[in-house]
Amino acid sequence: MRNFNENTITDAVLDRITDAGQPRIRQISEALVRHLYAFVREVRPTQREWEQGIEFLTRTGHMCDDKRQEFILLSDTLGVSMLVDAINHGAEDGVTDTTVLGPFFVQSAPEKKLGEDISGGMEGNPMIVTGSVSTPDGKPIANATIDVWHSDDDGYYDVQQLDKIGDLAMRARFHADAEGRFRFWSIKPAAYPIPHDGPVGDMLTAQGRHPWRPAHVHFMISAPGFEQLVTHVFVAGDKYLDSDVVFGVKDTLIREFVRKDAGEAPDGRMQNTPYYHLNYDFGLKPDANKAHAV
Amino acid sequence: MRNFNENTITDAVLDRITDAGQPRIRQISEALVRHLYAFVREVRPTQREWEQGIEFLTRTGHMCDDKRQEFILLSDTLGVSMLVDAINHGAEDGVTDTTVLGPFFVQSAPEKKLGEDISGGMEGNPMIVTGSVSTPDGKPIANATIDVWHSDDDGYYDVQQLDKIGDLAMRARFHADAEGRFRFWSIKPAAYPIPHDGPVGDMLTAQGRHPWRPAHVHFMISAPGFEQLVTHVFVAGDKYLDSDVVFGVKDTLIREFVRKDAGEAPDGRMQNTPYYHLNYDFGLKPDANKAHAV
Ligand SMILES: [Cu+2]
Ligand SMILES: [Fe+3]
Ligand SMILES: [Fe+3]
Repeated sequence: MRNFNENTITDAVLDRITDAGQPRIRQISEALVRHLYAFVREVRPTQREWEQGIEFLTRTGHMCDDKRQEFILLSDTLGVSMLVDAINHGAEDGVTDTTVLGPFFVQSAPEKKLGEDISGGMEGNPMIVTGSVSTPDGKPIANATIDVWHSDDDGYYDVQQLDKIGDLAMRARFHADAEGRFRFWSIKPAAYPIPHDGPVGDMLTAQGRHPWRPAHVHFMISAPGFEQLVTHVFVAGDKYLDSDVVFGVKDTLIREFVRKDAGEAPDGRMQNTPYYHLNYDFGLKPDANKAHAV
Repeated sequence: MRNFNENTITDAVLDRITDAGQPRIRQISEALVRHLYAFVREVRPTQREWEQGIEFLTRTGHMCDDKRQEFILLSDTLGVSMLVDAINHGAEDGVTDTTVLGPFFVQSAPEKKLGEDISGGMEGNPMIVTGSVSTPDGKPIANATIDVWHSDDDGYYDVQQLDKIGDLAMRARFHADAEGRFRFWSIKPAAYPIPHDGPVGDMLTAQGRHPWRPAHVHFMISAPGFEQLVTHVFVAGDKYLDSDVVFGVKDTLIREFVRKDAGEAPDGRMQNTPYYHLNYDFGLKPDANKAHAV
C-alpha cells in the first residue's frame, strides 16, 4: 500500500489495524482514525498549523507533573470530562449526581477523625460540613470512606502553594460513623480560576473564555458494594454557576452554605465567631458488578 | 447553563466559544469539539478508559525532549502527518512529491561542501548521492539549500546514539552549485523501526502493527521564491515499502540505489571498494505567495 491521497489514506490506516489483539482496542482505534481524519479534512490545517498542534500537545505534556495534570484540565475545559461522566452516570433516584474529578485530587490525603478541623490553619471563614452517606432508599452506609478537598479563601488549593504552606491542607479522608454520618470543620472555599498560565490557559484566551469555576467542595465517597461517587457541592449564589469553565454544575449539587452567628455549632462545639454550615446527604449507587451485603 | 447531559453538552460548549477573537480559532475549536464528541459518544469510554487516555497523552508528552518528538511519532503512525501532507501538497508536473518530516530532523545541521563525506566515520556500505534541483520546467535552481539526513547501517540516526558516536553524523546542509547540482558521500541507510520503547510503540503493539520504515534518505530543500520541499528518497526493493509504519511511501520517491564495483565514481573520485549510487533530480514548486526572480 503506497501513494495515498487525502481520500485513500483513511482505509489504508483502518486496514493496518485489523490485527489488533483486543476487539476493544480495534474499535477505539478505528473510531479515533475516522473522527480524527474527519476533523483534519474539515479544518484543512496548513503545515504550520499542524506544527502548532504538535507544539500545543507537547507543551501540555510538559506541564504535567505530580502536582498538575494539564491534560485533565484540557479534557475538563473542552467539556470532554463531563461528557464521559454523563455517559457513565445517568440521573437516578436516591443517587447523588456526579461531576468532574478535577486536577487537584491527591491519592493519599491525611486520615482525620470525624469533627476535626482540616483547614491546616489557613485564614478564612470557618465552615462546618455535616452530612450522611446512604443507599438510594435511605439506609445508612456505616464506615463509608469520604475524601474531601477544596480551595482556600483566595481560590487556591494546598498543592498550588506547598512552598508557602508547607503541607497538605483543606483536604482529608474520613470514615462515616455507624449511622453513615460525618462532620468536619474547615474554611469556606472561594471561586477560582483553573491554573491558566499554561497551554490550556492560552486556549481559553484564544477562545474568548474566562477560566473560573464557582466555589465548591469536592467529595469522593466509596464503600464496598457501591459505585465510587465523585462529585462536588457548589456554593449557592456563586456568580460562576452558569459559566463554570469545566461545565460541571448540576442544580442538585448546589447548596446554601448557611451563615450562622457565633454560638453552639451543629456538632456541639462552642463557636465564638460567625461561621458557615453546609449539610449534604449523599446517596450511593449499588455496584451491579460486585453485589455485597451492606 | 447547567445540568448538561450527554446530548446537550455539545451545544453548551460550542456556545461558549463563540467569542473567540480569530475566526480560524473558532472554526478549529468548533470542529474539534464536534468530532471529539462524536468519537467519545461512539466509543463510550468508561472512566477507567478515559484515565488511560489521559495517561497515554501524558506519557507521550513526557517522552518529548530536544532529541525525541513522540507526538510527531503519534501523528505519523496514525497517518495524520501524511493526511496533512496530502491536503497541502497535490501531485504536480515537474514538482517532487512530498512525504513526512519525521522526528529526526535537526535544525542546525553542519554545513558541508559539495562532495564531502558526511558519514562521520560510521561503518557501512559507501554511498554517493548525486542530483539536481530545478524548477518544474527544468531550469536549474542555483545555490538551493539542501538538508539531508539518514540512518546508519543498523537503522539508527545520529541523535539516537550521541552517547556512543559523540557528534552529529549522516546529516548535513549543502548548497547546490550554479547548475543546481549537488553530490556527497555517506553510507547506505538501512530500514529501521521507529523508536518504539514509548507510548507510540505500545500503541502499535496493541494495534498488531510492526514499527518499521523502509530505508530512505531525507531531503529538505529550499530556495527563495519556492515552497520548501520536505521528502525522502526510498531504497527500491525494501521489504517494508508496502507497510511503512507512517504511510509515507510514494512510487515517485523510490529509486534504485545502484551497486557499483570499485573504480572511478561519478564525482571522479577513485573508490577502492564497491559502493552504491543514488541519483535524484528534484523539482521545486514556485511559491505563489512570494514571487521571486530565480
Ligand atoms: Cu467525527
Ligand atoms: Fe475544585
Ligand atoms: Fe527517517
